[in-house]
Amino acid sequence: MSAGSTLARLREQKPLIHQITNYVVMNETANATLALGALPVMAHAHEEVEEMVGLARALVINIGTLSPPWVDAMLAAGKAANARGIPVVLDPVGAGATSYRTETAKRLLDEIDVTALRGNAGEIATLVGVQAEVRGVESMSTAGDPAELAREAARTLELVASVTGPVDHVSDGVRTLSVSNGHALLATVTGTGCMSSAVTGCFLAANPSPLEAAAEALAAFGLAGEDAAAGAKGPGTFHVALYDALYALTPESLDERARIA
Amino acid sequence: MSAGSTLARLREQKPLIHQITNYVVMNETANATLALGALPVMAHAHEEVEEMVGLARALVINIGTLSPPWVDAMLAAGKAANARGIPVVLDPVGAGATSYRTETAKRLLDEIDVTALRGNAGEIATLVGVQAEVRGVESMSTAGDPAELAREAARTLELVASVTGPVDHVSDGVRTLSVSNGHALLATVTGTGCMSSAVTGCFLAANPSPLEAAAEALAAFGLAGEDAAAGAKGPGTFHVALYDALYALTPESLDERARIA
Amino acid sequence: MSAGSTLARLREQKPLIHQITNYVVMNETANATLALGALPVMAHAHEEVEEMVGLARALVINIGTLSPPWVDAMLAAGKAANARGIPVVLDPVGAGATSYRTETAKRLLDEIDVTALRGNAGEIATLVGVQAEVRGVESMSTAGDPAELAREAARTLELVASVTGPVDHVSDGVRTLSVSNGHALLATVTGTGCMSSAVTGCFLAANPSPLEAAAEALAAFGLAGEDAAAGAKGPGTFHVALYDALYALTPESLDERARIA
Repeated sequence: MSAGSTLARLREQKPLIHQITNYVVMNETANATLALGALPVMAHAHEEVEEMVGLARALVINIGTLSPPWVDAMLAAGKAANARGIPVVLDPVGAGATSYRTETAKRLLDEIDVTALRGNAGEIATLVGVQAEVRGVESMSTAGDPAELAREAARTLELVASVTGPVDHVSDGVRTLSVSNGHALLATVTGTGCMSSAVTGCFLAANPSPLEAAAEALAAFGLAGEDAAAGAKGPGTFHVALYDALYALTPESLDERARIA
Repeated sequence: MSAGSTLARLREQKPLIHQITNYVVMNETANATLALGALPVMAHAHEEVEEMVGLARALVINIGTLSPPWVDAMLAAGKAANARGIPVVLDPVGAGATSYRTETAKRLLDEIDVTALRGNAGEIATLVGVQAEVRGVESMSTAGDPAELAREAARTLELVASVTGPVDHVSDGVRTLSVSNGHALLATVTGTGCMSSAVTGCFLAANPSPLEAAAEALAAFGLAGEDAAAGAKGPGTFHVALYDALYALTPESLDERARIA
Repeated sequence: MSAGSTLARLREQKPLIHQITNYVVMNETANATLALGALPVMAHAHEEVEEMVGLARALVINIGTLSPPWVDAMLAAGKAANARGIPVVLDPVGAGATSYRTETAKRLLDEIDVTALRGNAGEIATLVGVQAEVRGVESMSTAGDPAELAREAARTLELVASVTGPVDHVSDGVRTLSVSNGHALLATVTGTGCMSSAVTGCFLAANPSPLEAAAEALAAFGLAGEDAAAGAKGPGTFHVALYDALYALTPESLDERARIA
C-alpha cells in the first residue's frame, strides 16, 4: 500500500474522525480533516462520546486545553474505541510543561491502548522519562537523536510514535521511518502539530498498518505545507493556503513527492 | 419587504445577536455576523445569559459541542428570549448521530418556542421522527423530498423549518419556499451550516416575517458563497472570501440575484 | 527604549505568554502572539494554571466567554503571576453589558494586581463608575474624552489603562500617550481588541516600563492593521493579512511609523 493509495481510499470512504481536542484548534483540525477528504466530528460530553465513537473510524485525543471533565471523556472515548478496535491517536500537547499535562498524558497512555502517539521531541521525551525543556507547548531542546527517541517511545509505550520536527521520525519499535516533507512556515501557525495528529487519525482510518499510515500522514501534511508555502506572504496566507493544498493533494502527487525513508 | 430591504434595515439597526453555539465555529459565526452588518455576542454562563438576551434582538442556539451546563444555559436563554418576544433560531447539529443530541434538540424544541429551525435533511428528519443517517454532523442520506420534509417539520413542530442542502427549502407549514443560491465549496468548510443559522438570526432580527427572513438569510448566505467561489482556489481561500463577500453584499445585488421561489 | 527595540528584544527572547482567554478568539490571539514572535500558551485548568504561569513572562486574562470555573482559574493564575512579579493584562470584554461581566472584572481588579487594563471606552468607563452603553461586547457611546477616561482609570485603579478606539489612549495616571496607528477594518473582524490585549502582554514581557510597553504594543498592532488593509478586499482577507503583517513588521519600520504622542 502506498501513501497515494491510502489517500485515495480515504477519499472514497470518507471516514468519520471523532476528535476530542483543544479549544484553540478545533476549527483548524476540523477543516484540515474535511479538506483532506474525511469527516470530522467534535464531541466531548461524557453523555455521548461512547456513542459517537461507535460511528467513527478513528479517535483523535489532544490535551491542548485539558480539564478534568474533558479528561474523563477522553478516557471513556478511548476505552470505547479500544473495545471497537478502531485506532486511537494521542497528541500530548504540552506534556513536560506542567505536571498536570504530563500525568494526564501518562494516564491516557496507561488506560487506553493508543495506536499512534504524535508529538514534538520535548513532549515525547517527557513521556519516556527523558528530561526535556518544554516551554508552554513548544519543544525548546531535545536531548539526543529524534529517530532514537521515536524508537524508544515505540518500544516502551508499545505503539507507533511520531516525533515531529524539521524531519519527522515514525517508529513501531522495529522499523523507524523518516519523513522529510514540510516547511518552516508550519512552525509559525498555531495548531499545525494538532492538525498533523488529526491527519494521522485520517490515514489510520484508511490504512491498517499504523506505522505506514502515520508516516504517510506526515508526508501528506508536510507536502501540503510545501505547496502552501509557494505563494504565501507570511503565516496568515500560509495558513489559508494549507487547506487549499490539502484539498488539492492528489494520490499521484503524494506518491511522487512523499519523502519517506 | 424584500431580501434587500431586510439587509438594508439590518445594517442600519446593527442588532445584537446573542449566540450560544459550539466551540468549533464560534469565531466563524461571530465574523459572519459582523461581516453581514450585525453585532455578535457569545455568552453561555448561566449567570448572565438571561441578562444578555435582554440586550439582544435574536438568539441563536447551536448544539454542535453540547454538554449539560451549556444545555441549561440554552434553556434559560431560550425562555428569556420567549418572554421578551425576540426570535430564537435552533441549529440541531448532529441530531440523529447520538441520542444525547437527538434528545437535547427535542427538549429544546419542547421547552422553548423556537422561531426557526435550521438543519440538514438528516437532522430535521430525525426531529420529525423519520429515520435518517447522520454520520457525525453530516447528513448521509435523506429519505424523501426535502421540501416535503421542511413542510412536515414546520407543521409538526410549529415553527419555520429550513432544510438546507444543494437547494434549501424553507416552510412555515403553509407556504414553502425554495432557495437556489449557494455553491458546492460551502460543503468543504466546517461551520458553514452554523454560519447560515447565525445569518438566519440576523435576518429574523430585521424582518418580522420569520418565513421570509429565513429564506432571505439563506439566499444572502448562498450568494456570498457564490461570490466567494469566484476567485477561490480551494476551501481555505473560499472560507476567507466568504467574509469579504458577506461584507460586500449590497441590498440591490441581493434583490437582483436572490433565487427564492 | 523604543518600540522597535522592544520588538527586537521580544523576538530575541521569545517569551512565553500565558493566556486565559475566550473561546471565540483563542486561535486568533495565539496566532497573533506567534506571528509577532512570542510563544503563546492557553491553559485554564485550576490544576495547572499556577504552574504554567511559572513558565511564562506575562499573563493575559480575557473575560469574553467567562464562567465560574474559568474565573477561579483567572484569579489563581493572576495571584501566581503577582507572586512571581510578572506582568498581568486584563481585557474586560463586555464589562457594562451584564452585571456578571462587570462584577467579575471588578473582582479581578480587586484581587489581582493588574499591570495593564485594555478595553474599549464603554468597558473602561464602566469600571471607573461612569455610565456607558455597552451592546454585547461593543462600546456604543462614550461619555467624555477618552484620554481623560484613560487617565482616570489609571489613577483610580492604579494601573496602566489603554482605552482603544479610532485613536488609542494609554495612561499611567501621570503621563498619557495617544497612539494614532490603526485602520477602520480592524472593527470588522471579531477579536481584534482581544489580539491587541495579547500583543500588550507580549510587549510587557519585553519592556519593563508598562506605560511604554502598552503604547508600543498598540502602535505595533495598529501598524499591522494599516499594512493588512493595503491589499485587503474585506474583513476576510484583512484578517489573514493581519498575521502576515505582524510577522513582517520590523523594528525599524515600527520605530519609523509608530505614531505615539
